[in-house]
Amino acid sequence: MRIVRVPLGRRSYDIKIASGLISKLGVECARLKLGRRCALITDPHVGRWYAKPAYNSLSRAGFDPALIVVPAGETAKSLKSAQSCYRRLAAHRLERHSFVVALGGGVVGDLAGFVAATYLRGLPLVQVPTTLLAQVDSSVGGKTGVNLPAGKNLVGAFHQPRLVLCDLAVLHTLPLRQLRAGLAEVIKYGIIYDARFFQRLERDLPQILQRRAATLAPVIARCCEIKAAVVSQDETESGLRAILNFGHTIGHGLEAISHYGAYLHGEAIAIGQVAAARLSEQFSSLPAADTARITALLKRAGLPTTVRLTAPARRRLLAAMQLDKKVRNGEIRFVLASRIGKAAWGRPVPAPDLAALLTSHA
Amino acid sequence: MRIVRVPLGRRSYDIKIASGLISKLGVECARLKLGRRCALITDPHVGRWYAKPAYNSLSRAGFDPALIVVPAGETAKSLKSAQSCYRRLAAHRLERHSFVVALGGGVVGDLAGFVAATYLRGLPLVQVPTTLLAQVDSSVGGKTGVNLPAGKNLVGAFHQPRLVLCDLAVLHTLPLRQLRAGLAEVIKYGIIYDARFFQRLERDLPQILQRRAATLAPVIARCCEIKAAVVSQDETESGLRAILNFGHTIGHGLEAISHYGAYLHGEAIAIGQVAAARLSEQFSSLPAADTARITALLKRAGLPTTVRLTAPARRRLLAAMQLDKKVRNGEIRFVLASRIGKAAWGRPVPAPDLAALLTSHA
Repeated sequence: MRIVRVPLGRRSYDIKIASGLISKLGVECARLKLGRRCALITDPHVGRWYAKPAYNSLSRAGFDPALIVVPAGETAKSLKSAQSCYRRLAAHRLERHSFVVALGGGVVGDLAGFVAATYLRGLPLVQVPTTLLAQVDSSVGGKTGVNLPAGKNLVGAFHQPRLVLCDLAVLHTLPLRQLRAGLAEVIKYGIIYDARFFQRLERDLPQILQRRAATLAPVIARCCEIKAAVVSQDETESGLRAILNFGHTIGHGLEAISHYGAYLHGEAIAIGQVAAARLSEQFSSLPAADTARITALLKRAGLPTTVRLTAPARRRLLAAMQLDKKVRNGEIRFVLASRIGKAAWGRPVPAPDLAALLTSHA
Repeated sequence: MRIVRVPLGRRSYDIKIASGLISKLGVECARLKLGRRCALITDPHVGRWYAKPAYNSLSRAGFDPALIVVPAGETAKSLKSAQSCYRRLAAHRLERHSFVVALGGGVVGDLAGFVAATYLRGLPLVQVPTTLLAQVDSSVGGKTGVNLPAGKNLVGAFHQPRLVLCDLAVLHTLPLRQLRAGLAEVIKYGIIYDARFFQRLERDLPQILQRRAATLAPVIARCCEIKAAVVSQDETESGLRAILNFGHTIGHGLEAISHYGAYLHGEAIAIGQVAAARLSEQFSSLPAADTARITALLKRAGLPTTVRLTAPARRRLLAAMQLDKKVRNGEIRFVLASRIGKAAWGRPVPAPDLAALLTSHA
């Protein structure tokens, strides 16, 4: 088992990475010294395979779990879903020492995390991410949230989990499209932080796509290490942490204007990363060759890298980006790379340049 | 102007107490170095008198406020109201450096505070409490939240304000019933923390009920000092802070079973405090004479001290108390006083004793 520690003082926690962790969920939770009652939140896709083993593992360890199944897909990340979770937590009489287990991908993790952050003003949270994307990104770092019709993740809270369990075995039942989407975030870590890791991905991509545990485990661990390093320096995103959003400003906008339906998050982010790379060429001296490598690797991972937008869609996209959480004084700011392995945040990009990019990017 | 500092490290803030502060709102906010856009959240009752001066003060200081009027009354403290606030914040393009001003009583403060705590994962918040209860209690300390059908404040967040402005002038337009309700919390501070303050209240009650600024200012300041002292020792209520909930377990239960309509919060708390005093006689040696003084002072303040419950209502009350945030392992725990001026938290009261009390208390 690989263990990555996220050092955040009193709120420090471990990310454990191994095959078969779901069946050890109860034992792992028992180490945290929490109350007996808990809620196990999942969706129908994940639940079909893993709700039973997770539930049984909790029961065997002496816990009293309520199983809550929320709808699948990004549209479930709503205040309405949160409200129905709250109702269930109240009915199961969860107390302040009770806890919430999020068993699923990014949507379940963000929603269940938000519910845990806000029920009784905060319950302990255990993340059991079941997609590659959730394992390397959304389950770590404490960001939780739901979407509004106006934009993605506009409502949320910072709420660190007490434990993250990445079960490698679940990746075998992950649909290929989801695996590819997760790779968009994996590749991002190489671009923003670690050129050698990017090289390793260029080399090992075939084995990763074959889901070889021996290749995946160190890749996931490295992503978690990078995220832990960044988050521990800037937990609430007052600066550095924003680099984790490379490609996300445009990506979130794309998700919003397609009503969270057309793209998986990772797919939108892949398109956003190529766009961010082009902006980086223009505004932070990223070599064109690096953009080419980034584009090539994303393509090899089976991800989209361009989008064709009509003029009205382009306007909607620009408007949606205005709602990005990192907009300041109405100016959209970007994470830009100066080379593969190094990124910085805070570059305002003038609206005309952005519009030009979105036109040429079609 | 009296200033009470709430010492919470990087999250420290001032409570300012004086007449006429609403017209200085803009200037006071300008000192906090926040963004230009803000939301001014109020209800129709308060808004009728104070929305315009508050709005104009913000505008004059260069801010761009959106006025959001939420319904009046406890039923407005809902996820539905929060959602409509979020929509307005998105439409007004609030950013992370934008801020929220809560102009109103406890309901507005709790709701606007929760909205500020969760929009974009947290916006700066300025509290402008316009009831006595909000000035001495709910605006200070960072508790925010909304109600669920299952219980009061079941959903919420800890989110400290950046500034609290207590304008004494607004107390002149406060309905008498609201002023009396606020006194329930004022008296509570004497019971749990400061016997001399309790004595002062016994002496000065007539002038307080006449709303004499010279009497009210030091009373409000002392309540804020006590709350600041308690909160700074235990921000997220892992222990000591719970003493602030003297009378609240039964009080919240009464509010819940009457669907937040029959009692003002302070009225329910007054009944709850007398009940807690009787439990304190039984379980923590509170002298019967102290219970008599507590009951007498609450009565002189014009507050209810008893409630007549049918047997089914009693059962509903006991069930509602099971949802209290301080329940642990299904056991209802109480804040009990050992004498006027001293309280401790964590005393589990056996269900039969509680049922007996509620019967005799009728």
